[in-house]
Amino acid sequence: MKFSPALLELIEALRCLPGVGPKSAQRMTLHLLEHNREGAEALARALTQAVEKVDHCQRCRNFTELDICEICADSRRDTSIICVVETPADVLAVEQSGSYRGLYFVLMGHLSPIDGIGPAEIGLDRFQQRVLDEGIEEVILATNPTVEGEATAWYLTDMLLPRGVRVSRIAHGVPLGGELEYVDGNTLAHAFSGRRAVEQG
Amino acid sequence: MKFSPALLELIEALRCLPGVGPKSAQRMTLHLLEHNREGAEALARALTQAVEKVDHCQRCRNFTELDICEICADSRRDTSIICVVETPADVLAVEQSGSYRGLYFVLMGHLSPIDGIGPAEIGLDRFQQRVLDEGIEEVILATNPTVEGEATAWYLTDMLLPRGVRVSRIAHGVPLGGELEYVDGNTLAHAFSGRRAVEQG
Ligand SMILES: [Zn+2]
Ligand SMILES: [Zn+2]
Repeated sequence: MKFSPALLELIEALRCLPGVGPKSAQRMTLHLLEHNREGAEALARALTQAVEKVDHCQRCRNFTELDICEICADSRRDTSIICVVETPADVLAVEQSGSYRGLYFVLMGHLSPIDGIGPAEIGLDRFQQRVLDEGIEEVILATNPTVEGEATAWYLTDMLLPRGVRVSRIAHGVPLGGELEYVDGNTLAHAFSGRRAVEQG
Repeated sequence: MKFSPALLELIEALRCLPGVGPKSAQRMTLHLLEHNREGAEALARALTQAVEKVDHCQRCRNFTELDICEICADSRRDTSIICVVETPADVLAVEQSGSYRGLYFVLMGHLSPIDGIGPAEIGLDRFQQRVLDEGIEEVILATNPTVEGEATAWYLTDMLLPRGVRVSRIAHGVPLGGELEYVDGNTLAHAFSGRRAVEQG
């Protein structure tokens, strides 16, 4: 005896969620069918709708339901400065810290040659073009203080400095080895104000 | 700035899954949209299909896509004996232990007066009728060895013994305070063979 096909399929499908193993997928399936069928239907609708509607902003690559996201389209933002982050969650964290009013570029990851993720995969060709076209004065590197995040920051530095763009790296407050999205707003505000210009080596 | 409406809705909808808080719902949402949109669509389909197709077996209350589940319809099973368990996962665990060839009754929970779950909510009225109608010789109580599982077992004992039904309780091997579905097959087999008849007090 095993579970019915529709149950097995749902158990298997739930494993596309990060951190969900076979045992918790089974537990989730039984819970939904026994206690929350409306929740299951609402989740199905939300998944379908998000996949249909959400795409990348054509300017900053952040997730949005518009062609150009609300931040990129906001005329009150300082358009002379771009902050580079790894993920949409990082944008949210920086915004919530209230310490920054410029634009963003969201890498949707970081350089990771071992996984086949090079500069093109995180949009750096398009980013360089944008920085030059728009006459950006400063690029703030807010990638995570991890090995890959640091490597990505150095790559960006090498790419931008020779073209006369001011490059800075948020520095103080973000704990080494940590992830930006888990840092509280005060710490992030401190990290922004304490940023240092990156000098040519 | 916050996430777009479709993202916020998905983050909220994911919280219907047991053990998923706001932070992991956000992480799941960003992961699906960035790395696994096909998985998200498959999950939406699997949820819809499971809610549509899966219902309770009319005889044993286990989840099934049929009117009568495969176990209840299997003519090779011993129809003189019924094992009472709390959840479909418990049926699976007992089946996988290979130690039992009778029928089941799945309570889909346990008695819990504080939550408004009385005998009717776990199907005990129907169960008693079934035991009498079908001339069941023995009822094996395999509810969990927790406070609620034990209380449910005692309620069933009081209900069945006066009607001349042999009642037994799986006893050895299942660790006290533990949950049946996490016990390995050998331990469960031991628990079944070591069951003791319940005497009238
Ligand atoms: Zn944008
Ligand atoms: Zn059945």
